[in-house]
Amino acid sequence: MTENYKMLLAYDGTRYYGWEHQPNTDMTIQGKLEAVLTKMTGMPVEVIGAGRTDAGVHAKGMVANAHMDTQLSEQEIYEYMNHYLPDDIAILEVHKAADRFHSRYNAVGKTYCYTLYVGNGKPLFNRKYVYVPDRLPDLEQMKKAAEYLTGEHDYASFCGNPKMKKSTVRIVDEITIKQTGSYVNITYHGSGFLQYMVRIMTGTLLEVGYGKRTPESMVDLLEAKDRSQAGFTVPAQGLCMMKVDY
Amino acid sequence: MTENYKMLLAYDGTRYYGWEHQPNTDMTIQGKLEAVLTKMTGMPVEVIGAGRTDAGVHAKGMVANAHMDTQLSEQEIYEYMNHYLPDDIAILEVHKAADRFHSRYNAVGKTYCYTLYVGNGKPLFNRKYVYVPDRLPDLEQMKKAAEYLTGEHDYASFCGNPKMKKSTVRIVDEITIKQTGSYVNITYHGSGFLQYMVRIMTGTLLEVGYGKRTPESMVDLLEAKDRSQAGFTVPAQGLCMMKVDY
Repeated sequence: MTENYKMLLAYDGTRYYGWEHQPNTDMTIQGKLEAVLTKMTGMPVEVIGAGRTDAGVHAKGMVANAHMDTQLSEQEIYEYMNHYLPDDIAILEVHKAADRFHSRYNAVGKTYCYTLYVGNGKPLFNRKYVYVPDRLPDLEQMKKAAEYLTGEHDYASFCGNPKMKKSTVRIVDEITIKQTGSYVNITYHGSGFLQYMVRIMTGTLLEVGYGKRTPESMVDLLEAKDRSQAGFTVPAQGLCMMKVDY
Repeated sequence: MTENYKMLLAYDGTRYYGWEHQPNTDMTIQGKLEAVLTKMTGMPVEVIGAGRTDAGVHAKGMVANAHMDTQLSEQEIYEYMNHYLPDDIAILEVHKAADRFHSRYNAVGKTYCYTLYVGNGKPLFNRKYVYVPDRLPDLEQMKKAAEYLTGEHDYASFCGNPKMKKSTVRIVDEITIKQTGSYVNITYHGSGFLQYMVRIMTGTLLEVGYGKRTPESMVDLLEAKDRSQAGFTVPAQGLCMMKVDY
């Protein structure tokens, strides 16, 4: 009998072209998951992800679901997947879900974290999971700017997809900026995020931190609804998908 | 004027054939350091390391020294090296030292740490820096065995070099075994360590933890002075050189 399985997973996105299938490569997270589940069940399996992370983006709490017909228990699926998946993709949990559960449509909130390394020298053992800014940004100014960026807004200025036809209105409840030793974590929680939105917001906040923009200028920037007026897109490697709310 | 520079450095050993020069490859830590310093000074530079870590072994506190004739300040050397070295080798400090300072001969103590992952699932983001044992070892039994292995002993049973001609007597002051969450750190401090010694001791301690050996059997094992009677050599990737004492 076909059941709907909900999976919690983590991955190191360094080697991958993102979550979603791409032509001419099997190096996508979706592709790796589907290959293992298709082998496990002997039937084609489609894996639906809560979000489509971009190339190089990591995850500690991605949620996915797949409808499968298998005799294996949840624990056996968990073990099978971890055994056959590459060592940079880890399944954290597998549970049966309601048949209508859809990991993307049912998601009501998401948390992303962007990590900066601001210590001396190089972030050796974490180098693939952080971004090293050119210089030390002023975190207090960044925190002020972040307040202007929270709320319900049209985030068109922070949308990396120039062909976006649908609404670019989103709710960003909270942006927290916290330094712990040599690392600064910028954590975003919201209803959902546009393509590259977290990375463009982070690049824009960094420009505030460098003194190139004022916190107050965020008001006009949101109003402009023009990507070219926002800051640079920070590299993918500092970004990690932390949690999906249902 | 030629000065003797002492360097503190860290590296991710994953891609390297160890510290020491090897024929037919430039992928050694010593080789990378010498290439950068030779380029910097315009003259051949020999880098002496406090220890010759094996292929795949990491370091957070390796010490090296090199005699060089350069106009650059310590800070400039530090910056030059970090700029031109690959991103998996980091210079932490550069200081002028006494001319007679020799990072290996003058070392009086060393600290190594071996890390086990004992959590559920996979050690995703730390996977290159830990070893995942086949099953959960009994840490209390391992701690008892570790006490027998400390002191001044002939560690021939733990020497991986079958052609070793010199003394295999060493002092191991302390072996601490500590679990923090999903990780177990086994830290060794001693006067010096034979080739593979930390990895063979760790493999032997793990066999105690699995119930294959008793803590008391360490007495006979030291007495045997026979490598074949000790446990397996754990993989290099869990090992890290932490500190050198002078």
